[in-house]
Amino acid sequence: MTPKSSSGFFISFEGGDGAGKSTQIKVLAKALREAGREVVVTREPGGSPGAEAIRKLLLEGEADKWSPLTEALLMYASRADHLERTIVPALARGAVVITDRFADSSMAYQGLAGELGEEAVSTLYKLVVGAQGPDLTFILDLAVDEGLKRSGSTGDTEQRFESKGSAYQEKVRQAFLEIAKREPDRCAVISADGEIMDVAARIGAVIQARFPKLLNR
Amino acid sequence: MTPKSSSGFFISFEGGDGAGKSTQIKVLAKALREAGREVVVTREPGGSPGAEAIRKLLLEGEADKWSPLTEALLMYASRADHLERTIVPALARGAVVITDRFADSSMAYQGLAGELGEEAVSTLYKLVVGAQGPDLTFILDLAVDEGLKRSGSTGDTEQRFESKGSAYQEKVRQAFLEIAKREPDRCAVISADGEIMDVAARIGAVIQARFPKLLNR
Repeated sequence: MTPKSSSGFFISFEGGDGAGKSTQIKVLAKALREAGREVVVTREPGGSPGAEAIRKLLLEGEADKWSPLTEALLMYASRADHLERTIVPALARGAVVITDRFADSSMAYQGLAGELGEEAVSTLYKLVVGAQGPDLTFILDLAVDEGLKRSGSTGDTEQRFESKGSAYQEKVRQAFLEIAKREPDRCAVISADGEIMDVAARIGAVIQARFPKLLNR
Repeated sequence: MTPKSSSGFFISFEGGDGAGKSTQIKVLAKALREAGREVVVTREPGGSPGAEAIRKLLLEGEADKWSPLTEALLMYASRADHLERTIVPALARGAVVITDRFADSSMAYQGLAGELGEEAVSTLYKLVVGAQGPDLTFILDLAVDEGLKRSGSTGDTEQRFESKGSAYQEKVRQAFLEIAKREPDRCAVISADGEIMDVAARIGAVIQARFPKLLNR
């Protein structure tokens, strides 16, 4: 709604389940803290008390508990709360905010790969996020089979969203790549293949190239 | 989203608290059932299992628990579920649906009288309701002092929405009248002053004049 008036920096991590987002967020947060930054790590859906309550509604129950439209409205209700109560205040005091998923997940899962379609998701984005979107988005890209294997083995899954099969997951993967192609200045596609520190090095290199002051001050 | 393809008839009751909406809905539902109609009585926020779960989130807690934007998104999430799971199926099988509040409440409380503004509420209306809105809307109009007296005496209040004072309630009253002025074919303003059966007679007269087949067949 209101333009971002902050001295902070807003980073989102996107990608399919099992791509290692939460691990990479921990590594990056540590590096930024060592560089003297205040770092706020958060996630979606959730990230504020109200948004976490909406998250419960979203993730409990059967896969068809909510229609695609209702699900998108709930996602954006939780996103509005997350922005207002957590992200915007943290940016205003100069923090680096790193979120595990943000609006690109709605566009990928529901807009481009899902039944709702792009236009409805774009409408909600403009209404809720407007100019308050991320400065930098890492899209962790991984072959679907590999991602499902990893997320299955860690148990870090959301049943409602994982039960849709690998053809859907492949559509989601392509959707994230399409988003990155549309907004190359904001997005960086990172291969999530390989060891944790190899992937972390790829992320660090993007930051050094695009926003060198973030890690060195 | 999709156009209304039904043989049913969709009626909403709107107005401030204490105007007697639920009492008048009971009287009208009885008359319609006696005329041989299937009648589904419902309410907002709520009216379907998912929407009732969202209603709990909306009505519990402090008055500032949600920002106006988050509140509107939650309202429209519950409305989408209510439409898809309760209203549209009932209309499709030919029932008369009577709802205690619908989208005009969002426009009155949040759009015209509240901080969110008309445009955001209109955007959500188009996204969620589209052509699926009521065929007929009764706006029960009552002086604010009288409404607060009545709703206080019945205990039929929603604390979060009632705690905003009588200046706000007067803005809400004027907002409903403005909505009726904009859509005179759909809306009928009914004075809620007087005895229950006097108000019911005013409602019955509007139905006889506009949709005579509803009560006589």
